[in-house]
Amino acid sequence: MTAEQDAGPGLTLARVAELCGGRIGHGDPEQRITGIAALDLAEGDQLALLTGASYLDEARASGAGALLVSNEMEERIPEDRARVVVDDAHAALIPVLEALHPLRQPAPGVHPSAVLGRGVRLGADVTVGAYAVLEDDAVLGDRVRVGPHAVLGPGVLVGDDSVLHAHVVLYPGTVVGERVVLHAGVRLGVDGFGYAWVEGGHRKVPQVGRCVIADDVEIGANTTVDRGSIGDTTVGRGTKIDNLVHLAHNVRMGPHCAVAALVGIAGSTRVGTGVLFAGQVGVAGHLKIGDGARLAAAAKLWRDLPEGETYAGAPARPLREHLKSLARLERLPGLTKRVQALERDLADLRASVAAATDEDEAGDVEKAGP
Amino acid sequence: MTAEQDAGPGLTLARVAELCGGRIGHGDPEQRITGIAALDLAEGDQLALLTGASYLDEARASGAGALLVSNEMEERIPEDRARVVVDDAHAALIPVLEALHPLRQPAPGVHPSAVLGRGVRLGADVTVGAYAVLEDDAVLGDRVRVGPHAVLGPGVLVGDDSVLHAHVVLYPGTVVGERVVLHAGVRLGVDGFGYAWVEGGHRKVPQVGRCVIADDVEIGANTTVDRGSIGDTTVGRGTKIDNLVHLAHNVRMGPHCAVAALVGIAGSTRVGTGVLFAGQVGVAGHLKIGDGARLAAAAKLWRDLPEGETYAGAPARPLREHLKSLARLERLPGLTKRVQALERDLADLRASVAAATDEDEAGDVEKAGP
Amino acid sequence: MTAEQDAGPGLTLARVAELCGGRIGHGDPEQRITGIAALDLAEGDQLALLTGASYLDEARASGAGALLVSNEMEERIPEDRARVVVDDAHAALIPVLEALHPLRQPAPGVHPSAVLGRGVRLGADVTVGAYAVLEDDAVLGDRVRVGPHAVLGPGVLVGDDSVLHAHVVLYPGTVVGERVVLHAGVRLGVDGFGYAWVEGGHRKVPQVGRCVIADDVEIGANTTVDRGSIGDTTVGRGTKIDNLVHLAHNVRMGPHCAVAALVGIAGSTRVGTGVLFAGQVGVAGHLKIGDGARLAAAAKLWRDLPEGETYAGAPARPLREHLKSLARLERLPGLTKRVQALERDLADLRASVAAATDEDEAGDVEKAGP
Repeated sequence: MTAEQDAGPGLTLARVAELCGGRIGHGDPEQRITGIAALDLAEGDQLALLTGASYLDEARASGAGALLVSNEMEERIPEDRARVVVDDAHAALIPVLEALHPLRQPAPGVHPSAVLGRGVRLGADVTVGAYAVLEDDAVLGDRVRVGPHAVLGPGVLVGDDSVLHAHVVLYPGTVVGERVVLHAGVRLGVDGFGYAWVEGGHRKVPQVGRCVIADDVEIGANTTVDRGSIGDTTVGRGTKIDNLVHLAHNVRMGPHCAVAALVGIAGSTRVGTGVLFAGQVGVAGHLKIGDGARLAAAAKLWRDLPEGETYAGAPARPLREHLKSLARLERLPGLTKRVQALERDLADLRASVAAATDEDEAGDVEKAGP
Repeated sequence: MTAEQDAGPGLTLARVAELCGGRIGHGDPEQRITGIAALDLAEGDQLALLTGASYLDEARASGAGALLVSNEMEERIPEDRARVVVDDAHAALIPVLEALHPLRQPAPGVHPSAVLGRGVRLGADVTVGAYAVLEDDAVLGDRVRVGPHAVLGPGVLVGDDSVLHAHVVLYPGTVVGERVVLHAGVRLGVDGFGYAWVEGGHRKVPQVGRCVIADDVEIGANTTVDRGSIGDTTVGRGTKIDNLVHLAHNVRMGPHCAVAALVGIAGSTRVGTGVLFAGQVGVAGHLKIGDGARLAAAAKLWRDLPEGETYAGAPARPLREHLKSLARLERLPGLTKRVQALERDLADLRASVAAATDEDEAGDVEKAGP
Repeated sequence: MTAEQDAGPGLTLARVAELCGGRIGHGDPEQRITGIAALDLAEGDQLALLTGASYLDEARASGAGALLVSNEMEERIPEDRARVVVDDAHAALIPVLEALHPLRQPAPGVHPSAVLGRGVRLGADVTVGAYAVLEDDAVLGDRVRVGPHAVLGPGVLVGDDSVLHAHVVLYPGTVVGERVVLHAGVRLGVDGFGYAWVEGGHRKVPQVGRCVIADDVEIGANTTVDRGSIGDTTVGRGTKIDNLVHLAHNVRMGPHCAVAALVGIAGSTRVGTGVLFAGQVGVAGHLKIGDGARLAAAAKLWRDLPEGETYAGAPARPLREHLKSLARLERLPGLTKRVQALERDLADLRASVAAATDEDEAGDVEKAGP
């Protein structure tokens, strides 16, 4: 980036193309882009993203100064539209957004109101917010940022460059990797839901395992992850978890999974690599979910899910079967009508057969009639 | 209200009638009402609400000093029952409860332990609780009340008369209107669940939009609302949201909606005016829900919902169709039996036809028999 | 326990057997056990639990120093396996875990940063964490432990030996019994979701009841329980509630229930004794659930649930019926094929009957043919 490109507000179109590894399909390389907006809201100094064919009308009508489009979409928009053309428009957005919205980081430092227990160790350039509580022997890596009111129990470890937003609570012994992001109200290492029925009551089984979060994980607001009962609950590297998710004790979640909001996974279930859970999915305990599997929104899983499969419905089963089953239900009224028709036709046929027989048998009778 | 009416504890029956715009159907206007209780628990100095015909037996047996009933219900209770008669008994409860349970408000003032950043502006008669953190440039309107431990990020705006209960977290730039109530643990403006798959991993798409809450909204405990990815997530005027709800990035929720607990609405869905979401409803992303639509409890919506329609089931569809479909499932055993009967009858008929034919054909054979 | 048994790290096998009321099926009574681990991870100084036949292979291959097994399982493992044999292996784990992992309790005392309102009363040996806020007239029993940042509203009562983890919020007037455990982010006594439609908007019905939690209850992280609208919301003695559960206003939950994660129970529903709710169950309002009833995971209950019954599905119905209904759906393709076969067979029969009739009638015609 040259000084000249930095002279005005925002970015030049040329700089946008450079940042996202694209090319200017049409437009003035010196045109300035000061922000990104939705197609229907964008103005002349803003870039808008065209994600798919269903938004082509909005793209044509958009007041955006330029569009960010994929190679496939380019020829479907007017030729004279200023545009940056890339392989993957969604991914291309990332460096542009990062350049337009640099993170405002508070200067490192420990707020004077923070409470640090005995044996707490802090890495270089750590930030600890107001009223944060780091209990005995908690250890923070370099550049860790701990938000206001976060509570880190005794012996907690947090790796370099991780960010704990306000109000995060880590129970004793929780381990958090590097570059992890924990949003407001995340609770890690909570006692699992483990009781034995003893003498007419639920008696608590002590929960003594840990909650271990690998590098590059992000966890959404108010999500809860239990500690292991014995052994650990683990979340693998690069896995992303949305808001209000519940992972029970001894779940072992692989790397690069994505877990949408309000999902619940019961105890001891083992999840492979790159598994996708859409919103409100429920998974029973002690199951195995293979690598690359997917669960559609609100699917409820009661048995193992093989590698690479997509399951849907409640109980969850292969998407194809689920859709067939739904289609069959749609055709039930038709089936009922066919059964009615069969009953009628069979009765008719029986009657006509009977009549024919009667006729034969009745031949003499009729002749013998009065 | 006269001084005399105020002389004893609670309210006179006359005052109750006056407050809720009703009339005394029977009873002593000077009778004192000191509280409101459920029909089965109410005592002689308490008022009990009769909400519907299913509670008539409880109403007749109730020890309540007086009943609050609608015009339609009045003639179904004993004539000598002390009662206040109104158009809408549920709505009538509001002014009576407000009079019997005046809000205990702490005196305005900023607790000495609260942390206020640079450029924070406070309106008149603001209350800020212990350990609340208002980061740089946060702005509070008049009479705003911020509970203990609330964290308001940089640049947050909160309108007049809004109440933030303990432990609310507002991410940077969140905008909250007037007379808004946010319950404990609400998180507004959380980063949305936005990633692109880049070089074998989920890479975070910076979330740079805002979360904007209009006037007269109430949001329940531990509910999370994401900020927009680009553009804003918005909740319209007068909309009420229950506990543990998740609204994803760029949801645009209209005014006067009601969203019950554990609902999840995925990204970019647009919701009209006065839409009702019962508990545990799930809504996919990028949908449109028309004005006055309703979703029954646990409905899962995968396509647009037209204005005024009520949908139920998973996948959600018109309530009427859903109920028909359930009824059809109930009749499946019957249908199966009808098919069995058809198979049997058809076999019988075929056999008798065959027998008849055989008879015909066998005529000679038989005649030719031994 | 003798001094000798205490000499080394962990426990002797004899001490393990003594603690859980079992016997050594095989093994050296002086063998030392320093921890408990899962079958597949356990090492030579660890005890591993064999919970059921499905884990027999893992048990045989396990590197555990000794196994904890039930009487029924004992004869299915190799005779020379060191083992402790008990009636109920799961329950037996409790005293062993308690002995191996004694709770690390902070010394009692009130952190100097805690804020105590007027009229607050503290029992003996109370612990109050950093930045906790106890508002006016809050009362704590003996040995109560309040975690950092907990907020107890005016007039809250907490019984002896209860533990409030970090970030618990109790709204004004909430009552918590003895030996109750509230995990991080629990919100009790939240305003219920009660509005009346008045003049074109939702108007809040003041929520003036309490939230009352009986003795020996445990409530998971980020769970919310509303206060009663009028009257109380109650949770009975010994009931255990998992993370992210929602109990609405005026729910009356009986003793010894278990409520798994992400369950929602709507207003005024009454739940009996010992009821089990699996994960993501939803229950409509104003229902009655009988003693000992069970709801399978993700069941959605719209009508009363009789005592002792197990319901499943959406809408929930007796498990037996639910399973039959699922099986019937599986057989729908078969039923459709049977209907197709019937249609074909009936057409064939009709054709052959017609042909036969034609033959009869056509006899003369044919004879009269060219």
